[in-house]
Amino acid sequence: MAESWATLGVDLHLEPTGPGLRRGLTDALREAVRSGRLAPGTRLPSSRTLAADLGIARNTVADAYADLVAEGWLTARQGSGTRVAMGASPTPSGQRGRTAVPPDGPAPRPRTPARPAHDLRPGFPDLSSFPRTQWAKATRRALDAAPYDAFGYGDPRGRPELRTALAGYLSRARGVRADPERIAVCAGFAHGLTMLGTALRARGVRTVAVESYGLDAHWSLLNRSGLRTVPLPFDHLGTDPAPLTDEGAVLLTPAHQFPMGVPLHRDRRAAVVDWARRTGGLVLEDDYDGEFRYDRQPVGALQGLDPDRVVYLGTASKSLAPGLRLAWMVLPPGLAEEVARAKGGIDTCGVLDQLTLAEFIVSGAYDRHVRSARLRYRRRRDALVAAVAERAPGVRATGIAAGLHAVLRLPPGTERQVLRAAVWQDLAVDGIGRYRHADAVVEPMEALVVGYGTPPEHAWTGALDALCAALPE
Amino acid sequence: MAESWATLGVDLHLEPTGPGLRRGLTDALREAVRSGRLAPGTRLPSSRTLAADLGIARNTVADAYADLVAEGWLTARQGSGTRVAMGASPTPSGQRGRTAVPPDGPAPRPRTPARPAHDLRPGFPDLSSFPRTQWAKATRRALDAAPYDAFGYGDPRGRPELRTALAGYLSRARGVRADPERIAVCAGFAHGLTMLGTALRARGVRTVAVESYGLDAHWSLLNRSGLRTVPLPFDHLGTDPAPLTDEGAVLLTPAHQFPMGVPLHRDRRAAVVDWARRTGGLVLEDDYDGEFRYDRQPVGALQGLDPDRVVYLGTASKSLAPGLRLAWMVLPPGLAEEVARAKGGIDTCGVLDQLTLAEFIVSGAYDRHVRSARLRYRRRRDALVAAVAERAPGVRATGIAAGLHAVLRLPPGTERQVLRAAVWQDLAVDGIGRYRHADAVVEPMEALVVGYGTPPEHAWTGALDALCAALPE
Repeated sequence: MAESWATLGVDLHLEPTGPGLRRGLTDALREAVRSGRLAPGTRLPSSRTLAADLGIARNTVADAYADLVAEGWLTARQGSGTRVAMGASPTPSGQRGRTAVPPDGPAPRPRTPARPAHDLRPGFPDLSSFPRTQWAKATRRALDAAPYDAFGYGDPRGRPELRTALAGYLSRARGVRADPERIAVCAGFAHGLTMLGTALRARGVRTVAVESYGLDAHWSLLNRSGLRTVPLPFDHLGTDPAPLTDEGAVLLTPAHQFPMGVPLHRDRRAAVVDWARRTGGLVLEDDYDGEFRYDRQPVGALQGLDPDRVVYLGTASKSLAPGLRLAWMVLPPGLAEEVARAKGGIDTCGVLDQLTLAEFIVSGAYDRHVRSARLRYRRRRDALVAAVAERAPGVRATGIAAGLHAVLRLPPGTERQVLRAAVWQDLAVDGIGRYRHADAVVEPMEALVVGYGTPPEHAWTGALDALCAALPE
Repeated sequence: MAESWATLGVDLHLEPTGPGLRRGLTDALREAVRSGRLAPGTRLPSSRTLAADLGIARNTVADAYADLVAEGWLTARQGSGTRVAMGASPTPSGQRGRTAVPPDGPAPRPRTPARPAHDLRPGFPDLSSFPRTQWAKATRRALDAAPYDAFGYGDPRGRPELRTALAGYLSRARGVRADPERIAVCAGFAHGLTMLGTALRARGVRTVAVESYGLDAHWSLLNRSGLRTVPLPFDHLGTDPAPLTDEGAVLLTPAHQFPMGVPLHRDRRAAVVDWARRTGGLVLEDDYDGEFRYDRQPVGALQGLDPDRVVYLGTASKSLAPGLRLAWMVLPPGLAEEVARAKGGIDTCGVLDQLTLAEFIVSGAYDRHVRSARLRYRRRRDALVAAVAERAPGVRATGIAAGLHAVLRLPPGTERQVLRAAVWQDLAVDGIGRYRHADAVVEPMEALVVGYGTPPEHAWTGALDALCAALPE
């Protein structure tokens, strides 16, 4: 499948964009012809094939083809299929005319990396469900209500409206003990962790304990702040804090271990807070998907146990979209000032997104969006569990009580073969190996990490099929 | 004046906010009473006094008082003036009820620092003129048009739509030789400079030459990246690049020296580019207010002379608002990748603001906004020059051909006295001293840096009066 795309040279722009599927597809195809990426005479895949590849209805493709035949970009003839019309000459560099052209020639359009047909990598919400209309309305209201000095250089901790709204929300929904004065808004979790790393390093911390499973990118960020990471053991109760000694801090995902999906056992929650109290250490609580919980009562934030020793980190990246670049930290006394200093003394996030999110939360739109997303993800999770049980009974889905991803435990000796089969399906999915710390203290295991939140709604079923086709029967 | 505010304890919320002045003032006063910051029985200043303090019409204040008397928050009696009603009991902690209250008590509202009555500090545009309606419309259009994957983790250089729009605009309006592939969007100039500092340090650069006059904050940012700053001499032709030797880079404001206001002489423009070519050094061109130019042809960007040796840095902070946290760099070959690495490999700016700004530029709204702002600032500058000529003939306004600030040269021995007089006027304005590098190579000089762009439109005349009252006659 990937090969047919490559042959056609339409590897990336043929994704349906914008609100209407049919229109999105039509636009993408037209653009591909106009820009010359689809040369005159090129034969297009049959509507059945393209529909299967994109995971959308065949009629949608047939309609898009018909529109473009009517516009003269394509020709359709019995027996010779659908082709790019011979007269469809490309516009230079694919410019759309609206963009000003520099005097020394048309500006080339920036490249975008190619994408797989199916994407089940974890770490994303369904981007196609971003609440565009509600967000635009909240922006409008936020713009109307903002005092004019909101447009100036802001408090390095972020807009007071957002910090106040977050304090209320986090307290209500996640059991965080939050004071707006001790909240700092940041441009995503990675930005927050970098600021914390800088502040910890300035305090003289040299080592941060981390989980045996987690994100390499986070460990690297800590390294770049001059901090060494040492992993704690992991078992069915979650990460084991017993070996903690004089590390200055520990980075954990207590509500929903990433990527393993288990919550931290209550004894271990108590133990890690106890360690922090005894040694003066800090717990960095990464609550990346605390909003999404299906089968049981939400696990409250660890921070509620001791706000003086736990830094709470939350984000809009899973509940809304990573593109907002909005996350937040609830900081113990003293650390708010140190983090503000690490931020360079100025607010780093755009005020309009901050004011809009505040309005979104206060108006109740955030809760409504999260509830409806929770329902959709739960349905996907149920479909995943059912499909795996039926089509790959040797595979066990775990870590499924919460979040936007599951861990599929594979029969021993099959992980490599499954990942190879996924490539053949043009399916992007991760093996558990890439989430293992180099010095991890864990039982060996073969598994896939499946981000079932990632595909847009129309592509979900196709992605699930591709996954099942790659699994051992 | 400042004292009366302090006595009343209403030092900050009594600024008019939002679109309607009267409503803003009414809301602010009501909030001050509701929150208990204005205790029952407190006597308010007369409408005349308050109007003068805020630099707004007396009727607006009288109307706001009348509204609040009608609502029962205030009482007005002949002879005893306007007072806070005795029954006006505060809501706990000033909560507005809409924000959820944490279970362990109401969240305190974040503090904001007090503000002077008049603000003529440079570095700000008129925040009250932010084009709210146009921006909201552009956001709506950008949200409608965005492909869904725009909401994901983005290219560390920023959204392609914005980079393409900027390439066109900068080429047309500033003579920058721009290729979207070599543009990096950043969260304000300071963020860009920090990334550049990190990248330069990684290249082995140890020293960056700077101007004798400039912003201490920028020098500090370079220091934090491990770079030493050494100032170049300054005279009436601008900064003199002659002493440059093996510094790895030089940071300049060629179009409009900050804060002195002169453009860099063309011989020196040529000389600095020549230095960069000879030594392999880089010129960092801070084009912070290149859009605002009044009496003569715009000075094109230095970058146009040699895009391989000049890094161009522009920002939306003066043309729109600092609160957007949007700036951009046009980078020489190779450096784009190094800067992306310094950014941690992820886009740090919210995509919605980026897409909105792209839409704003492409639709022509950006040009319209800049043109209308230019007209307003020009009028202010003319009023400033005329008022100074009339009321303080011993003072000379310089650096006035462009930008949002002017330098008022003071008679020898008067700067300290003028700054003291400004405090009495509750006027924030800067002496030239704070913009001088510790190792500056310059003639001694006494002057004020007056940011005439800073006050909102309704407060401009009051601020100008306060300034004139502080100047020596």
